[in-house]
Amino acid sequence: MEHKIPVEYLEEIKKLKQEVYEANLKLVDYKLVIHTWGNVSGITKDRKFMVIKPSGVSYNELSADDMVVTDLENNIYESHYNPSVDAPTHTLLYKANPEMKGIVHTHSKNAVAFAQAGKDIPCYGTTHADNFYGPVPCARALTPQEIDGEYEHNTGLVILETFKNRNIDFKATPATLVKEHGPFAWSFKSPMDAVNMALTLETVAEMAIKTSIVANLQSHPAQEALVTRHYLRKHGKNATYGQKSKKH
Amino acid sequence: MEHKIPVEYLEEIKKLKQEVYEANLKLVDYKLVIHTWGNVSGITKDRKFMVIKPSGVSYNELSADDMVVTDLENNIYESHYNPSVDAPTHTLLYKANPEMKGIVHTHSKNAVAFAQAGKDIPCYGTTHADNFYGPVPCARALTPQEIDGEYEHNTGLVILETFKNRNIDFKATPATLVKEHGPFAWSFKSPMDAVNMALTLETVAEMAIKTSIVANLQSHPAQEALVTRHYLRKHGKNATYGQKSKKH
Amino acid sequence: MEHKIPVEYLEEIKKLKQEVYEANLKLVDYKLVIHTWGNVSGITKDRKFMVIKPSGVSYNELSADDMVVTDLENNIYESHYNPSVDAPTHTLLYKANPEMKGIVHTHSKNAVAFAQAGKDIPCYGTTHADNFYGPVPCARALTPQEIDGEYEHNTGLVILETFKNRNIDFKATPATLVKEHGPFAWSFKSPMDAVNMALTLETVAEMAIKTSIVANLQSHPAQEALVTRHYLRKHGKNATYGQKSKKH
Amino acid sequence: MEHKIPVEYLEEIKKLKQEVYEANLKLVDYKLVIHTWGNVSGITKDRKFMVIKPSGVSYNELSADDMVVTDLENNIYESHYNPSVDAPTHTLLYKANPEMKGIVHTHSKNAVAFAQAGKDIPCYGTTHADNFYGPVPCARALTPQEIDGEYEHNTGLVILETFKNRNIDFKATPATLVKEHGPFAWSFKSPMDAVNMALTLETVAEMAIKTSIVANLQSHPAQEALVTRHYLRKHGKNATYGQKSKKH
Repeated sequence: MEHKIPVEYLEEIKKLKQEVYEANLKLVDYKLVIHTWGNVSGITKDRKFMVIKPSGVSYNELSADDMVVTDLENNIYESHYNPSVDAPTHTLLYKANPEMKGIVHTHSKNAVAFAQAGKDIPCYGTTHADNFYGPVPCARALTPQEIDGEYEHNTGLVILETFKNRNIDFKATPATLVKEHGPFAWSFKSPMDAVNMALTLETVAEMAIKTSIVANLQSHPAQEALVTRHYLRKHGKNATYGQKSKKH
Repeated sequence: MEHKIPVEYLEEIKKLKQEVYEANLKLVDYKLVIHTWGNVSGITKDRKFMVIKPSGVSYNELSADDMVVTDLENNIYESHYNPSVDAPTHTLLYKANPEMKGIVHTHSKNAVAFAQAGKDIPCYGTTHADNFYGPVPCARALTPQEIDGEYEHNTGLVILETFKNRNIDFKATPATLVKEHGPFAWSFKSPMDAVNMALTLETVAEMAIKTSIVANLQSHPAQEALVTRHYLRKHGKNATYGQKSKKH
Repeated sequence: MEHKIPVEYLEEIKKLKQEVYEANLKLVDYKLVIHTWGNVSGITKDRKFMVIKPSGVSYNELSADDMVVTDLENNIYESHYNPSVDAPTHTLLYKANPEMKGIVHTHSKNAVAFAQAGKDIPCYGTTHADNFYGPVPCARALTPQEIDGEYEHNTGLVILETFKNRNIDFKATPATLVKEHGPFAWSFKSPMDAVNMALTLETVAEMAIKTSIVANLQSHPAQEALVTRHYLRKHGKNATYGQKSKKH
Repeated sequence: MEHKIPVEYLEEIKKLKQEVYEANLKLVDYKLVIHTWGNVSGITKDRKFMVIKPSGVSYNELSADDMVVTDLENNIYESHYNPSVDAPTHTLLYKANPEMKGIVHTHSKNAVAFAQAGKDIPCYGTTHADNFYGPVPCARALTPQEIDGEYEHNTGLVILETFKNRNIDFKATPATLVKEHGPFAWSFKSPMDAVNMALTLETVAEMAIKTSIVANLQSHPAQEALVTRHYLRKHGKNATYGQKSKKH
């Protein structure tokens, strides 16, 4: 039996569908997803309805109207499609964070690498600190029992557990990893801002991997004669590189 | 002497050529090949004819009609070109898997790295598990005798040997590596789906390489004073970053 | 109270705003920034006024007229927006270098990796030597006192300190890193040339990371029989790869 | 005093300029160069004249007519510009190889990494063996005396020395590295084919770096329960991912 969207929500939900649709397409622009992977959701002002990408539909076949409407108990309301299988993770995070406005899940490569290695993304510098107040935590792996049970709901639970146990503020650190899985990011402003945060997370993760390689740097500088020759070949009054002027 | 395509196959083969042609072009879009590298094939419903990219022709010079028709004994039927040199690997895989619908061979960089190192791609997380049930195996190197003999046919044989000896299901693990060579992927749905799987394989391989780097992470977090300063420069009521509003 | 731009500067500043605007947009083309990150500045001929990107405004919403005008004491002149928070770093560098014409700050990934690891970019070869005469230095981390004080001004001071203590010429080495933060680059010609230098820096940093990986290269060459077979499959009179000619 | 191009060469040189110009632009498409870096040359049928990119001119400002004409003694013939500073390396290689048709020099990142580390690119697999018969050699560093003398000519000499001492065939291995510098590639067919080889070289170098990382792979596979859950969430008769059909 299908649930009906109360008429007073129709206008807000139409607008939210458009917003969530555009945020989903941005995942493709930002190269954070391929195929049908990933999903973005948004929520109505009174937090009664969530709008989210349908499960397993290609980004280039989506329309705004294809976005799926559910309530926070995961009941579906007048939708063409089933919601993302990850919807119960989203609803749990919305319920635990009464001001959260958008949630994103991707399989972006560098953030996934940290999740697969089961490590926090350390705060190595200001690019990270500008956006996340401390390390981006990696939630523990789910137990076999949690995996065999309400898996997506339990995924949300280990995120909540991690932020509570480690005393992390969802607003100051708007992203997490789940071990052996991948990243989730969110925003207290809008679905599109959550997508921007997912790109920031991926960038910071890539920088952290490169930082680790540099920390162990190996190789020998070039010889002095070569450095001088090349520098002076391009610079100074005896430079031979380039043109004095076009000849004719 | 050239073989004729029976008239009752003309329509199906024309359609299949178009499908295989579009799947081949997708390899370029996905950046899985350069130059004339790589090839995609498809098969007729009764598995009498294979359609495959011609050997050594640039992707931007191909037309659908240039696709080459062979039977599963590698006889060529009414074609402008010779088939991919790898065609005997394809036909062998089709014969061993009566429901396989498309096969792709690429030299995509991350998958080739695993093949060149002679290692399986381990299942490090859910991105992998969503698509491959267990590690993507790396078939053994061919012996000098196998290389000097029916090389491409023998390449197919070591793939079959690997899946049989390790009891791997072609449907559950729709890709393999061949040591010192590169990846093959396939689909039980269509040639285009096989190409999508080749992109998935490349993505999963790239994630695995990054995971391995992260597992050995080295470097020191930034100092606390800097982290706090940068975070508060952009966030909270004393933030100096950004605009309160456009002034005029 | 707002400062007025003297009328005799209006034309020069209008032109400079256009130049600085175009240089800022180039940061996006070169993939050196995402979101609102990074900034480029330029300076008037008599070095009385600096023009710089506004703080926290997206590149795709900028117009030339949105560029912010300040003097070298960081007073703002008739501008719609606040300047980049990093403006005091720029003005300090301009004052210390009376011929410097443009300055760029980015969070480009490879250069940031060196900054986060707190290491100079070594001169590993001629690509580096063509552009930087010796290593690109990494300035020390700021102290907690420097961070809590005039942070952006102090960032400029540690750059000046580094170049003075290590006797580095700003003209011969037109870029630096700041530990735990990121890169700054400049030019004695124009803002656009400074942006080109920021791209060069990022490229040289990426090459240095890869050089370090190669220096520690691990793996075994492919077997001789395979190398010969593949080479001869594509080359020589018995090659089977490719087409003798299109058949019909 | 300027040398005149004999009238009987005008038509051939006009055509060759167009060909060399298009090959140079391809370096940008292939992302093998930035700024004014890199250069491609070609040669007339009787090997009397070389056509090469001018020094220090941006690719987006070039026209076919800007290509520079020299003889193999490096005399310039009726040209708007000075030739690439690397021209004497090209002419030496043409003189030593009477059938060579095109030469390319780039600063592509992965090939430069091998040159900067002073290492051959090992033949790790068939992607390499399809194109280079054995490792791509890295020529020794020039001595300070060679650097201070006819530097670009001497760069050509160490390449010739390397191929002679190691008994490498220029045709079977159409590329080299020069230590502390970067790659050169060539073709016995055309300038454009030499550019294609430069892209192949860069690709093979990138694969070799990744192979080396994989050879030292570190990390632990995901747990069995998770792998099974995710695989079955997307596949098989109890899959919850995706849509059975569009609902309405």
